[in-house]
Parts: sequence; structure tokens; C-alpha cells
Amino acid sequence: MNENSAIDRGQTVVDKSRLSLNQITTEHWTAREAIEGCARFGIPSIALWRHKIEETGLDACVKLVRDAGLHVSSVCRGGMFTAATKLERLERIEDNLRAIDQAASLQADSLVMVVGGTQGVPLDDARKMVFDGVASIVEHARASGVCIGLEPLHPMFAGDRSVLNTIDQALQIAMLYTPEDVGVVLDVIHIWWDPKLYAEIESARGRIVGFHVSDWLVPLPDILKCRGMMGDGVIEIKRIREAVDQTGYCGPIEVEILNDEIWNRPPDQVVSQVIERFVSLV
Amino acid sequence: MNENSAIDRGQTVVDKSRLSLNQITTEHWTAREAIEGCARFGIPSIALWRHKIEETGLDACVKLVRDAGLHVSSVCRGGMFTAATKLERLERIEDNLRAIDQAASLQADSLVMVVGGTQGVPLDDARKMVFDGVASIVEHARASGVCIGLEPLHPMFAGDRSVLNTIDQALQIAMLYTPEDVGVVLDVIHIWWDPKLYAEIESARGRIVGFHVSDWLVPLPDILKCRGMMGDGVIEIKRIREAVDQTGYCGPIEVEILNDEIWNRPPDQVVSQVIERFVSLV
Repeated sequence: MNENSAIDRGQTVVDKSRLSLNQITTEHWTAREAIEGCARFGIPSIALWRHKIEETGLDACVKLVRDAGLHVSSVCRGGMFTAATKLERLERIEDNLRAIDQAASLQADSLVMVVGGTQGVPLDDARKMVFDGVASIVEHARASGVCIGLEPLHPMFAGDRSVLNTIDQALQIAMLYTPEDVGVVLDVIHIWWDPKLYAEIESARGRIVGFHVSDWLVPLPDILKCRGMMGDGVIEIKRIREAVDQTGYCGPIEVEILNDEIWNRPPDQVVSQVIERFVSLV
Repeated sequence: MNENSAIDRGQTVVDKSRLSLNQITTEHWTAREAIEGCARFGIPSIALWRHKIEETGLDACVKLVRDAGLHVSSVCRGGMFTAATKLERLERIEDNLRAIDQAASLQADSLVMVVGGTQGVPLDDARKMVFDGVASIVEHARASGVCIGLEPLHPMFAGDRSVLNTIDQALQIAMLYTPEDVGVVLDVIHIWWDPKLYAEIESARGRIVGFHVSDWLVPLPDILKCRGMMGDGVIEIKRIREAVDQTGYCGPIEVEILNDEIWNRPPDQVVSQVIERFVSLV
């Protein structure tokens, strides 16, 4: 059996070497606990959230990650470029510059962008602010060696979190820059429904700087904290992962699950299940 | 000022003659009460839901509508073509044939289709079942003089309600048939986020058989019962309505609001506000 026919049949596997624990999956853990947890379970990569980094301290996180021999797949998050006033938009830019510095210190593959919703701004204007916002930070990112990862969010977040809702939209911005500076981050929870999904993934060839998995539960338990463990929902995760890999992406795959029920389980138990589901279903 | 320049500036208005009360907006009313409510408030059209029609009785509804001089903009709903077994799919077809008969009796402009989610079926297969389902009922619809109205639903409903999530997708099916037999129904709540919205609306020229309004609240109070009164959310309703009208659509505009808070207000108060917001904001 050659590799292509295996891919055609959705039978390829990933091993733990590509697993990254997005620390939101173990929400009750501090950054220190999440880093130590990865080391304990032999997970080679981690994605850190800024409020957790700041709680533990950036320098401490850098040391902890280095001592544990971990790779940082991403820092979450920059963005939030949309705001009604120029002053607010400038404040957001300042915050993004700080986020770039944090991502640089942690040598993260990318700084994930959640670009901001419509609130208070007409949709087209909000979308233009995202173009402008990226333009305002790309030079500092380049100088810092940080790749900006534009993440399209599910259309249900267009109001409050992100007016970037399709892969096409994210690529329209990314293509203005070199791939080293601006790429796209794909998360199955945000893109699985797209009627043009596989063509859009292919069109992102060379631009994918991050890939996230979880599952879409039916019924959806919540809007923000809606995500399920891989295998508990309706997303064809393996098919999407194979399409992403076919573009040449071979980097870490983050497991990023926002879900109250999972958060309330013992984190060690969650991480065990993450590993088990990852190697069998992703 | 010529009409085009007014349209360019989003200044056109609609009057009550185009208002249709989708009865779900006054959920606690029976079909009889909703029909009588429309008559009392001078609303010329109504959209009826099948469970409410069946509760009051189809013949009684036909008589009530006729006696009140009302026009029925749509019957909600047919569809739900996606199912794991052939037997289930056949049962859904049977149910659609009954829905067509009800829409025919009420001389509704269209029978609105909520085509069904993915549950238990891979997404591509589910989408194919929708093509097959429409093909199975179009002859009976034509013979009955009923137009099938394919409504793309927001991507957040792809799991449980509808794998038809963009105007493009709905048009791909509709275009297989004559416009008298199969059209599309556009609801701002489902389409407002789409980066290609205005181009897609234009591409639906001659195929739009229904148009629904409400508003997208931030934050979203619920997934199903998420809709706000026009003006309480972030959708550019007038701009979208003008784009729809520019395609030549001049039919009824349904106000369809699923929202617990609104449902719990006195229906007469809700209807008064619907009229006020409709003439000023739609």
C-alpha cells in the first residue's frame, strides 16, 4: 500500500510526537502545572495563554519550558483589532506588541490572532480594521522572529470575537506578507462546516502555521465552551488533518478544548484521554 | 434624489404592507390567536408553523386566514432529509409531501426547508441527501403549486439542523429546477456574517422567495433562541434588505424571532414593537 492510497482512505495515523497540549484544555492548571503535566505525560509541545503566562511570570515560563524540553506551538492570543475609537485601536496595537514579545521569548511557532468582532462597528469597517491592525504589527513581529497566525473563527463568533470567519478571508490578509511573517491557523471547530473546506485548505498550502483539533458536539452545550473531546462529536477530524498534512504541514497539532465538563475532570485524566484519542482519531 | 442614490445610502424604507408576522415571534399564541393578532394590528401577511397549524386544524386555519384577508408568506417547515437509514429518509419524504399539501391549502408563497444536520452521517453524504430529498418532492410540489424555499441556516446549525449553510449552496440545488418550483429563503440571522454576502445575494436574483429579519445579539443569549428584535443587535438589516430588494424581490418580509425573553412578554406588546422597528429599521 503506498502512502497516497492510505491517505485516500483516511487511514494514516499521527503519533504523540505531533501532539501539543493547548493549556486551555486543562483550564484549572497554571502554566507551571500544564508544562509539568506535558513533561510527565511525554507530550512534546504546549500552547500557552497569555493570562496564564502572566500569572506564572514570563521569565519563569521560559525557564520551565526550557527545563522541560518543551516546544511552544503557539501563544494565545493577539488580535482584537476592532474597536469603535482610534484610541482603543491604538491600545489594542500596543497590547499586540507585548504579545509578540511574549511569543518571541517563548520561541513559539506563532502568535495566534483572534481578530475581534463587530461590536460597535459596521462589519465591513471591522474587517478593514483587521487588515490595518495586522499591518501595524507585522514589522515588530518580523523583527522579533514571531509569525502572526491568523485564525478564522466560526461565524457564530463574528459578533463578539472575530470577523475573520473563513480560511479565504484569512488568506487574503496573509498573502499580503511573506509566509514567514503571516500565516493561518486552522482549527477544526471553526472550519468543519465550510462547503468549500478542502479546496480552501489546499489553497492555504505553505501558509498553515498551526492546526487545532477538538470536536463539535450535538447538541452544542454552550457557545464559547462548546468543544468536545475528539471522537465525541461530528467532525471528520482525520480527514481534515490529512488534508492539512497534504499541503505540507507537519508541525504540532494542538488539542484545544473549551468545555466545562472536561475542565471539571481531574486534569491528569483529561490528558490521558487526550493522548488516547489523539493517536487513534486524529 | 433618484432611487438608486437613496438605495446607495441605505435610506429607503419599507411600510407595513410588506410585513409578515412569523408566528414563532409570538410563540405563546395559537395559530388562531396569531391570525387574529395580525388582523387586529393591520399586518397583511403571516407565516405559520406546522405544529401550530395542526393544533388549530388545517381547515380551520385556511378559513381563519381567508376570513382575516391574510396572505401566508410561508409555512415552516419541510426538510430534515438527512438520516442514517433509508427507512428514516423515506419517512421524512412522506412528511414533506404532507407539508406540501398544507402549504398548498394555505396558498403559501413557499414551504420553507430546514434540510437537516449531519447527525449520524458524514457531512458530504448528508449534503448529497439534501439534493436527493429535494428531487424526491419537487414533482409533488409543482403539481400542488407550492414553491420549495431552501433556507441556508447559520453554520452553527450544521450539526443538528441544516447542512445547507450558505446562499451558494442553496442556489446550487435551486438552479437545478425552475424558479417557480425551487427558490431560496434568506434570513439575516443566518447570512449576515458571510464575507461574500452581497455578491451571493445578487447571484440569487430571481430565486429569492422569502426574506426574514431579526437581529444578532452580542452576547448571544442562546444557540437556538438567540435572535433579537431588529435594532437590538449588530446586523445591518436595512443594507441587506436593500440588497435583496435590488434583485427584484418585493414580497413579504417575515419577522421571525426565537427568544425566550421576547416570548415571555405580552404578545400584543411584542407585535407593536415589531411594527415600530420594522418601519424604521428594515
